[in-house]
Amino acid sequence: MAHSWEYYDDIADIYDSMYDEPYWVLYHLLTERLIEDDLRKAGFDSFEGLKVLDLGSGTGRWGVFFAERGSKVWSVDPSKKMLEVQRRRVAERKVEDKIEILRARAEDLPFEPNHFDVVNAQGDVLSYLEDFERGMREIRRVLKVGGILLASVDSFYDFANSMLREGTLLDFQSLERLKMTEIGDLNYSLKTFMSRVFTVGDIEDLESYGFKLVDLAGKIVFGPYEDTFLMKRMDEILDIEYKYCRLRELIGRSEHIHFAMVKV
Amino acid sequence: MAHSWEYYDDIADIYDSMYDEPYWVLYHLLTERLIEDDLRKAGFDSFEGLKVLDLGSGTGRWGVFFAERGSKVWSVDPSKKMLEVQRRRVAERKVEDKIEILRARAEDLPFEPNHFDVVNAQGDVLSYLEDFERGMREIRRVLKVGGILLASVDSFYDFANSMLREGTLLDFQSLERLKMTEIGDLNYSLKTFMSRVFTVGDIEDLESYGFKLVDLAGKIVFGPYEDTFLMKRMDEILDIEYKYCRLRELIGRSEHIHFAMVKV
Repeated sequence: MAHSWEYYDDIADIYDSMYDEPYWVLYHLLTERLIEDDLRKAGFDSFEGLKVLDLGSGTGRWGVFFAERGSKVWSVDPSKKMLEVQRRRVAERKVEDKIEILRARAEDLPFEPNHFDVVNAQGDVLSYLEDFERGMREIRRVLKVGGILLASVDSFYDFANSMLREGTLLDFQSLERLKMTEIGDLNYSLKTFMSRVFTVGDIEDLESYGFKLVDLAGKIVFGPYEDTFLMKRMDEILDIEYKYCRLRELIGRSEHIHFAMVKV
Repeated sequence: MAHSWEYYDDIADIYDSMYDEPYWVLYHLLTERLIEDDLRKAGFDSFEGLKVLDLGSGTGRWGVFFAERGSKVWSVDPSKKMLEVQRRRVAERKVEDKIEILRARAEDLPFEPNHFDVVNAQGDVLSYLEDFERGMREIRRVLKVGGILLASVDSFYDFANSMLREGTLLDFQSLERLKMTEIGDLNYSLKTFMSRVFTVGDIEDLESYGFKLVDLAGKIVFGPYEDTFLMKRMDEILDIEYKYCRLRELIGRSEHIHFAMVKV
């Protein structure tokens, strides 16, 4: 078993190309809409001037997203190679003055308390924390009161379902007990690492770290869509997914769960 | 388009064999557990002596289920051929003295008001009502106060998902607007008929007919299971489905939604 960042070091150069598929285009467009909604819910009328910690920032998709909309971004990731790719992207997109890149782990954030309006943890970063409690306490520490954590995590239900479909009851029982599973992609790296999976109840329980949950949504709740159809009708499918993604009864259909919590 | 009972007249002789698959074995075992729970929730400690209206009783699976546990059953169905199969089953199972069979529609029930402890509407009978409001009013009329309606209905989410997977956006939009869809099985009959599909919200809204919702569950929430695996591990899978079926976030994964409502 490897550390997550060792896996990401392996795949850094091809990481962005792995997410070119229509499914991920839809996923990212939906995430953008959810983030825009959640900032409004937290009382931020605009991205302009927000101090954003992009946690597990990887190749910088979300750092650039915030920077191009006027936020000041601190990009943090433990993977050296992923940050190298991010540096190139940041230069290409000409947002160097808006993004500061630091190599660090969520469990030890090199920032003063109450520093950020937003902690953005896309790409299931919270699932990959090695010391989950310490990471959550650090996130809360560096957020201002009223600041917002935006996150996606791996869904328990989707992994559970795969195991039951494949008939591996022992894996299912272990997933139920530990809420952890080994992940990776053998097409790209022989390294695997542990991911924490979440039920809706597990996410609600995160309020105990000193947050108030303000959003919960499934990404993606319908499908799987046929690729050509999805590419051709992306706008309509996006509208449908956006319309249904917050219905609690559909959250269990999705591979990833989006949530937003405000520091109280 | 046909009436639902015309379709069932066509398939009556092979109906029971259509439900031999492991999926339906699991489905029926899960339904039995849910019914047992729901009777307790409604304050009935035993099946013994309950007056049960088995609505859309078809070939009599559920009528016999209640009769063998000591209830007095009135089996009602508009399909003559399905009732002929039921008569044979009732004779074979030697429960003739416990089951009265009548050909009638839910919209016009030949019973006095406040007559039944239980109205059992399995097999998506409520989805197939031609005059839904009238059927619901009739069900409430013949139930005693405190009596319980046990039902399964077709899920909006599953039909919606099939249409989105198949790329038929117009069908999806029509389903969204009408909450109705054409169903049938061309392997067995050329007849098709209309089915009403339900979201969780639609089911909650049924309280407005004068009921209180006491149970809501997805049938089946994981899978699809591989047939051999499911047959071999039926008890364990049943336990898993039973454990998770009432989690609201999983109800959207199922093809059918079970619910129970008490007349208030």
